[in-house]
Amino acid sequence: MSFTIQNVLIPVEGGYKIVNVQVEGDRISAIAPEAPIIGDAIDGKNKLLLPGFVNAHTHSSEMWQRGIIPPLPLELWLAQLYDFAPLNPDKIYLSALGTAVETLLSGGTTVVDHLVLIPGQELETIAAADRAYREIGIRAFIGPLIQDESLTASIPSGENLIEHAPYIRSTAATLQLMKDAIARFHQPEIGINIILAPTGIQLCSEALFKGCIELSKTHNLCLHAHLLETKAQKKLAQEKYGFSSVKYLQNLGFLTSHTSLAHCVWLDDDDITILAETQATVVHNPLSNLRLGSGIAPIIKYRQAGVNVSFGCDGASSNDSQDLLEAIKIGSILHNITDFDYRHWITPRQSVEMASMGGAKGLNMGDEIGSLTVGKKADFVLYDLTSLSLLPRTDPIGLLILGRPTQAVDSVWVNGKQIVAKNQVKTINVDELRKQLFEQSQWIEERNSQTMNEIESHYRKVMKLET
Amino acid sequence: MSFTIQNVLIPVEGGYKIVNVQVEGDRISAIAPEAPIIGDAIDGKNKLLLPGFVNAHTHSSEMWQRGIIPPLPLELWLAQLYDFAPLNPDKIYLSALGTAVETLLSGGTTVVDHLVLIPGQELETIAAADRAYREIGIRAFIGPLIQDESLTASIPSGENLIEHAPYIRSTAATLQLMKDAIARFHQPEIGINIILAPTGIQLCSEALFKGCIELSKTHNLCLHAHLLETKAQKKLAQEKYGFSSVKYLQNLGFLTSHTSLAHCVWLDDDDITILAETQATVVHNPLSNLRLGSGIAPIIKYRQAGVNVSFGCDGASSNDSQDLLEAIKIGSILHNITDFDYRHWITPRQSVEMASMGGAKGLNMGDEIGSLTVGKKADFVLYDLTSLSLLPRTDPIGLLILGRPTQAVDSVWVNGKQIVAKNQVKTINVDELRKQLFEQSQWIEERNSQTMNEIESHYRKVMKLET
Repeated sequence: MSFTIQNVLIPVEGGYKIVNVQVEGDRISAIAPEAPIIGDAIDGKNKLLLPGFVNAHTHSSEMWQRGIIPPLPLELWLAQLYDFAPLNPDKIYLSALGTAVETLLSGGTTVVDHLVLIPGQELETIAAADRAYREIGIRAFIGPLIQDESLTASIPSGENLIEHAPYIRSTAATLQLMKDAIARFHQPEIGINIILAPTGIQLCSEALFKGCIELSKTHNLCLHAHLLETKAQKKLAQEKYGFSSVKYLQNLGFLTSHTSLAHCVWLDDDDITILAETQATVVHNPLSNLRLGSGIAPIIKYRQAGVNVSFGCDGASSNDSQDLLEAIKIGSILHNITDFDYRHWITPRQSVEMASMGGAKGLNMGDEIGSLTVGKKADFVLYDLTSLSLLPRTDPIGLLILGRPTQAVDSVWVNGKQIVAKNQVKTINVDELRKQLFEQSQWIEERNSQTMNEIESHYRKVMKLET
Repeated sequence: MSFTIQNVLIPVEGGYKIVNVQVEGDRISAIAPEAPIIGDAIDGKNKLLLPGFVNAHTHSSEMWQRGIIPPLPLELWLAQLYDFAPLNPDKIYLSALGTAVETLLSGGTTVVDHLVLIPGQELETIAAADRAYREIGIRAFIGPLIQDESLTASIPSGENLIEHAPYIRSTAATLQLMKDAIARFHQPEIGINIILAPTGIQLCSEALFKGCIELSKTHNLCLHAHLLETKAQKKLAQEKYGFSSVKYLQNLGFLTSHTSLAHCVWLDDDDITILAETQATVVHNPLSNLRLGSGIAPIIKYRQAGVNVSFGCDGASSNDSQDLLEAIKIGSILHNITDFDYRHWITPRQSVEMASMGGAKGLNMGDEIGSLTVGKKADFVLYDLTSLSLLPRTDPIGLLILGRPTQAVDSVWVNGKQIVAKNQVKTINVDELRKQLFEQSQWIEERNSQTMNEIESHYRKVMKLET
């Protein structure tokens, strides 16, 4: 299957250029003003072509609780999240589809799903997400969210000695689960990948981290984890190790050029140096970090230190959306208040680079996706520059990144296959998806979280909040 | 003209309720589950009705430059803005329409347009915006942006003695212009209002402020200005007065219950007390304050001190959009990182109150608009809760405010007149607007601003940035 997008605007050094973009099979075969038309001709006039962005960190099943969790910090928000998590693989399938649709319609072609597992139905959970991503055709990296410690262990103890209940699944069983998941679902050739994604130091033992590193080496898979999202986690690392969790992960060998780390809000300068040395990737989730009051990740410092940075939406109940363009916009302009010298501020072109190539590198795919380059996979997005939200004509990339694009995505291709046309997803029935999401939910304003009731007073005490 | 919205969800204390909302002429005549159907019956099933929001500060003609101005702080950004400002009233008409369309499709029913005037065509500029707002039917407060000092005067002098060129228009001529504008355009009965809106202390003389206050008293009009948007402006007030600009405006009598003040980023505790005492309204423009690196306005402190707060998009080249829901979302969650106690964080219901009633109060319209109340004007918005972006069903207001609603506005009424139906603006031809915006613009990546070249080195020196 071949096609050629004719007369389309692409960014080049210092401006834009009108070219033909030729695709043979799943790869870009030519990019040039006079490149011959092969296969179907697609009209690119008044449209902008960019490499697909990577939604580099999310938890798809959080979609079921978006909008409902009150303003709370991560530790208490998690209590609410887990008390009401969906327990049915059919729901996992629907929320994975929803996550993919919103990602595709906001410029994303790849999603990293740090997937919350239904206890006792772990492989069924992964199978449901796998099915959704295969059907819709988005490139997916599924990282089953694994841990071997209980939720209360993620909150610093302070001066108290707290007994934590044992986690529902042993370390060995968890690693076996990952082996099974890899054997059954890892199919990079069709765009479905399994990654090793321990939750983070707050909920994982050393044995679990080591097991993940081992599996990553054996199967050549990426590593992924949360890192220093909250002040409480920084405090916890001091309690657990007596030193920084970044140093801890480096010592274990968890930080590599194919490791991506979500959040990275509370790193100090020494930690940043380690990230730069190990070539690990920071996944910036600005909306979640604001929503949960986690803080502002020092993205300008990361860039200055040479650390690779990408963008993620994070799960839909800490955002509460999967609009990648919104995450990119806010994750770019947010840092203008952290550094008074505007010469350090992120430009829209740099944001595009972070969202595409930055995301690709973090998934060890920098040679395959992330830029409009002959020989790379045809993972790209065509934006309609006659959309009201991209008018009047000024700098198309400036307006795409700094504005609020609405219905601006005309078409999306992944692996050379067209998934979106005329702003509509073509591979699944979105009306049916809406119908199912509607029927399997109900309006509600408040819920009572038992776990939240149990841990709130300890949280307030240890975080030195008024009681 | 009467109508009744049947079986629609509205928020009530502690939850939601399904009611009929009856409108006679331009006012709400009943809200009750069993209210009889009068006039046209409109199906409100699976829809949420909320009072219209107020886009409480924008500059419509900035739409022509959205996306094109690089990441710069206000003072240098302004140089770029003014070097390329549109000089044709036809363009003012189009950008006012564009501003209104985006405001309406993101929940707004009222816009405050701090309107940049074309030199020598001041009344023609106001006439163009007036025509646009009358045609589309949005409630508008037009505040011609007036000043009597030149742009260079807005940058602190530091240790230099700088000569500023006289401004192009005298104080007396400016006040006469405002008298003419009031006589010709102020028609509150049809929803078009003129307000007195000196730029701010950085560009206005005492005589201009006093003249505005006088006219406001004579004609019972609102006052509006920028206030302490940047650190440079705080420095400038010290240079000019030796004390805070809030104290200065209070002394003049500019701060009243019908005064709204855009930005308010750099106020200290004494300033906040003055705002609370005078009952002036803060207009929070979070996206602009991030984009220009101005800072985070202390909104939680304002709320704790009892200061009324509303939301604005600010002009479209410092945002770079007019999506009011985005401004509300970011302006709500942004403050979670400024106060570690989550019990102080803004809830989605409080955000709705600020966006509607907060905006209404700042325009001296608290008795007329801002809530779903029998007797008030029918200025309200019907949201489609079957939009993918508002699914699954959770807390509708939570998801509307914290999510990223897309095509979620089903219908909008202003003054009892329907302006939007099925997510389409009905009063003007939006395709024709897009065509005009397209034809009267061109893609470009960079421009060379003469004024920016002239002032940048002085700005860097006085703001103590590396040279």
